[in-house]
Amino acid sequence: MSTNPPLGFLFSAGTAGIKPSGKPDLALALAPDGATAAAMFTRNQIVAAPVTVGRDHLRASSGMVRAVIVNSGNANCATGKPGLRAAIDVCRHTAKEIGAKAHQIVPSSTGIIGVPLPVEKITAALPALITAAQPGAEAFDAFAQSLLTTDTHKKLASQTVSHRGIQVTLTGAAKGAGMIHPNMATMLVYLFTDLVAKPAELQKVLKIAVDESFHNISIDGDTSTNDTVLLLASGKSGVQYKDVRDEFAIALTKSCRALAAQIVADGEGVKHVIRLKIEEAASRDHARRIGQAIATSALVKTAWAGADPNWGRILAAIGNSGVKINPERINIYLGEQQICRHGAACNFDRDRAHEYMSEPAYEIRVTLGAGEAGLDVISSDLTEEYVRFNAEYST
Amino acid sequence: MSTNPPLGFLFSAGTAGIKPSGKPDLALALAPDGATAAAMFTRNQIVAAPVTVGRDHLRASSGMVRAVIVNSGNANCATGKPGLRAAIDVCRHTAKEIGAKAHQIVPSSTGIIGVPLPVEKITAALPALITAAQPGAEAFDAFAQSLLTTDTHKKLASQTVSHRGIQVTLTGAAKGAGMIHPNMATMLVYLFTDLVAKPAELQKVLKIAVDESFHNISIDGDTSTNDTVLLLASGKSGVQYKDVRDEFAIALTKSCRALAAQIVADGEGVKHVIRLKIEEAASRDHARRIGQAIATSALVKTAWAGADPNWGRILAAIGNSGVKINPERINIYLGEQQICRHGAACNFDRDRAHEYMSEPAYEIRVTLGAGEAGLDVISSDLTEEYVRFNAEYST
Repeated sequence: MSTNPPLGFLFSAGTAGIKPSGKPDLALALAPDGATAAAMFTRNQIVAAPVTVGRDHLRASSGMVRAVIVNSGNANCATGKPGLRAAIDVCRHTAKEIGAKAHQIVPSSTGIIGVPLPVEKITAALPALITAAQPGAEAFDAFAQSLLTTDTHKKLASQTVSHRGIQVTLTGAAKGAGMIHPNMATMLVYLFTDLVAKPAELQKVLKIAVDESFHNISIDGDTSTNDTVLLLASGKSGVQYKDVRDEFAIALTKSCRALAAQIVADGEGVKHVIRLKIEEAASRDHARRIGQAIATSALVKTAWAGADPNWGRILAAIGNSGVKINPERINIYLGEQQICRHGAACNFDRDRAHEYMSEPAYEIRVTLGAGEAGLDVISSDLTEEYVRFNAEYST
Repeated sequence: MSTNPPLGFLFSAGTAGIKPSGKPDLALALAPDGATAAAMFTRNQIVAAPVTVGRDHLRASSGMVRAVIVNSGNANCATGKPGLRAAIDVCRHTAKEIGAKAHQIVPSSTGIIGVPLPVEKITAALPALITAAQPGAEAFDAFAQSLLTTDTHKKLASQTVSHRGIQVTLTGAAKGAGMIHPNMATMLVYLFTDLVAKPAELQKVLKIAVDESFHNISIDGDTSTNDTVLLLASGKSGVQYKDVRDEFAIALTKSCRALAAQIVADGEGVKHVIRLKIEEAASRDHARRIGQAIATSALVKTAWAGADPNWGRILAAIGNSGVKINPERINIYLGEQQICRHGAACNFDRDRAHEYMSEPAYEIRVTLGAGEAGLDVISSDLTEEYVRFNAEYST
């Protein structure tokens, strides 16, 4: 997939030597004439330095951004005051090189926690990184590629909307893998558009789109310290937000959903992606809590790893959600086939169920009989590979 | 370990053929002259039929029990109305055989969910089971053995207290393995004493002891549908509750803690048992929520599987607990060695840390700097064996 980014942005990727592997570990997006911005950050109370600095900078600049500088391989988290100084230093150096103010730069970091960020490696690589920045699909692909840590491939999404024959482009790149969970998690998402929009307009629509996408995915139930979703608008299409308001909201939600699905599918050790359709809940919040209880149950997720149609574990997870339920009104479906009726066993074709669950992606539908609200949660299985991978990460 | 049970109880074990393996799957405890009782059951909203029936029977009998009948191999959960009838049938048959009322019988079941309980197999085995019931250590051991499902060995605890030279015995047997989590989980615990105590007295002291033990353990974060902790008092020692009140509370708590630790150590695929000491919390509830957030984090638990002193994941889990914290006041210790100071990295001997974490049991201490409350949570690692085991359970 090759993705043409919107007008008004330049992209670049480089290797600062932060990753021991020697793979690209720096990504840069420039908005030479500036861009309006909106962002959502992790809800974890332990917050990485770049999240603190990024939030401060967006406030200080009233949502006007000139550059985004991302490093992978080091999260710059739990690094104390030196970590904050390091994140600020990276912004200062970037600002100086491009003739901007430090608070017009948004920094991001992803990687291992608790290791000092090697600022000098980043600043040494900056001049070449800036010089190399270009518009177009190739540069954007390189930008997306250099965000990755344990991801196996880059994650891209693109949508267009138009107004009176003029096209508005929305392009996104994401980094995911382990720790993905609602409230976001070692997840970096950068969305670029050439729409004309105020920061407050972007913030409002971004919140809705994130709530419909990244907040409804779950790999291992952990939430990282560095999560960032950033939306930048260059205004270069000349199309005003008010003229494409609904279309843009839909395009943004679609892009976020597409990136969310790619993140789950590429989760560490993930063999199966499961779309959990929670239906007939009393409220959307109930649907979400029940979906999350299922999606984070180790017993459910290991059954999925074994393609085991163990509906009893799903039922037990629902019972643990904290949401008041009536077991006798609960039905569970595996694709077309019902595997639990009124909270109890029913006859079903186990071989067919096992075969269905052997596919890389499938659907489980839960109807609660409590109301009319519903929600999809995208989740994954818990495999031996996940454990092996995460038991070996830092040492 | 051989354990002499208290006076006033007879024990027996048998094989009804519920388990495909042909291992013992029936356990019986009789109180020929009756016993007072207290119980705590799962907080999962999906509740197995024997839990519903047991709760009803204790209410109907005002806490007077003549027998406990336990089957392993089938949970009799999510079995609808036929499941309730099956649990009641087992009690009726047992009552008839021993000349008691059905509501004086407490039933328990553990095993797979959603499969009809083969009542006729149990009733066919009952007469021989009742005839074989005996006092003494050997019968009690057989009782404890037949409770087991995926456990690798039986779990026993024994304590005595005395008053004016007369001994009161308290003996417990438990069944644990997977799904263990606070609010209890496929955990069956039976405690027997010859103390003279009213049901309300037993209930009060049992609640405290469970809160200090079974509610603070965590294997996989799932809570089962069948959990039961039952305390029976025959009164045969002649010693009154009020005369040994404090000693008995301590003995009961110790017994519960000992059984809880055995349950965690024998969890599915568990290689390491970790005692998490949460200190300097603003409240006991905060300490518990933070301890549980650490104990249920897949990333933390996989790091433990690899003996990896990854304090960053512990810190991130604390940040996800929902409890308001000040990261800069958090310190983390691995045994004697500090591995995180003021929420940031500090120098420590990684080889020594790795060696310490290679032991089958060790301590991690977290100080929050927020107050004076504390709590221990006993947890375990998340291993490839756990995943392999649970991916293969039912099919």
